[in-house]
Amino acid sequence: MRRICICFAYKGTRYSGLQKQPNHDTIQSQVENALEKVTCQKINIYPSGRTDAGVHALKQYAHFDTLSKILTQNFVTALNTYLPPDIRIMSATEVDKDFHARKNVKSKTYLYIVSTSKITNPLLYDYVCEKKHDYDLKKINEIKKLIEGTHNFKAFCASKSSANNFVRTVESIEVEKKCDLILFKITGNGFLYNMVRIIVGTILDIADNKIPIENIAKMFESGDRKFGGRTVCAKGLMLYDVKY
Amino acid sequence: MRRICICFAYKGTRYSGLQKQPNHDTIQSQVENALEKVTCQKINIYPSGRTDAGVHALKQYAHFDTLSKILTQNFVTALNTYLPPDIRIMSATEVDKDFHARKNVKSKTYLYIVSTSKITNPLLYDYVCEKKHDYDLKKINEIKKLIEGTHNFKAFCASKSSANNFVRTVESIEVEKKCDLILFKITGNGFLYNMVRIIVGTILDIADNKIPIENIAKMFESGDRKFGGRTVCAKGLMLYDVKY
Repeated sequence: MRRICICFAYKGTRYSGLQKQPNHDTIQSQVENALEKVTCQKINIYPSGRTDAGVHALKQYAHFDTLSKILTQNFVTALNTYLPPDIRIMSATEVDKDFHARKNVKSKTYLYIVSTSKITNPLLYDYVCEKKHDYDLKKINEIKKLIEGTHNFKAFCASKSSANNFVRTVESIEVEKKCDLILFKITGNGFLYNMVRIIVGTILDIADNKIPIENIAKMFESGDRKFGGRTVCAKGLMLYDVKY
Repeated sequence: MRRICICFAYKGTRYSGLQKQPNHDTIQSQVENALEKVTCQKINIYPSGRTDAGVHALKQYAHFDTLSKILTQNFVTALNTYLPPDIRIMSATEVDKDFHARKNVKSKTYLYIVSTSKITNPLLYDYVCEKKHDYDLKKINEIKKLIEGTHNFKAFCASKSSANNFVRTVESIEVEKKCDLILFKITGNGFLYNMVRIIVGTILDIADNKIPIENIAKMFESGDRKFGGRTVCAKGLMLYDVKY
């Protein structure tokens, strides 16, 4: 039995998220179906974490165990033969038996893209959240500093989360303007359900004067979601990198 | 009666090209249906030129005549309300009665994107032609110089073209490498059917040593398509700009 870790990328637009669900087309079921065709075995993959419907990944990781004799590097071409072009295996590596693609994560980076132009470029539509007005980058940089660091992020988490411990470290929130886009690159040691989308939504709602900047302290103190901004849309989100 | 010129952008992936065709979903039929909803009149649009199925546009232009009293700038929001997000009206301007979106074109610029990485980024799949190996930019720049200028481009034209005059001026072919992509930006006073895709295919086939560089002179002398390279795929092509 070997344990193999694959790195893969996907456009999430037409899938019901990463995780396998009955009667839904998901990234996991596509990869597991391809693995079955390649190895003639039923194989479960264990990804670094879930992504929601419409969310993309440039670098997602998953491990699986197999008895197959296929050369490790040959999994890349073999799986891509059976996968649609919106899911691509980028690499495959044999790892130690105790490697775990979720438990061994040291940090993750997400990219969130906001389009500020009045009319969204149709070529970018699947990859951006449409805000249709510009933002003051200086103000965004002041707000984001209040979120960086180690905090109880319970108020930055969707209510349907099953987490017990809400303390996470957001190592950095880098914000950059490129033409009509604002790019948020958020790195942390772990993320709760919808946490990136609530962080971005809260920053934007404060920048838009919809909620006061003092609400961030209230969110950390109370753990109450009601003080936060909206959850911005899924299609602007992309898992950008995972570090082990 | 007013004549209005609209500038619009589209992702061509799910359409059977720009031009209206019975029983096919096309960009033109989508725009004309939206115009009918907005004005309650049947209106024909006259675009700057056709684009094939799968081809995109960042800046396409078309004119139309209307008796509607709607303020010109209000056509933008009104049409976008009825259009799907992969087609967006960017602007609308009232123009002289003798303005013609095809006949008045001074020059057009197309962008063609080639992906050279072994595994194509799934987020870019709809916008690139997959060559899966790198190219020598110096060699490409030598080849493209032989195509720039005023020539009889009959050999760079699909056989089903209805053109009578094949003389065109290719003002410039700019080639740039960005990460795993090669970008061809081709500007000319007019383009024959499939001309951009045959220019790029011929440059790449010569760079790949599949056909000799002397074939370019043979193409111009004989007008025979057989001396050229392949027609590269539609999805890598984008109408980038039109000048009047």
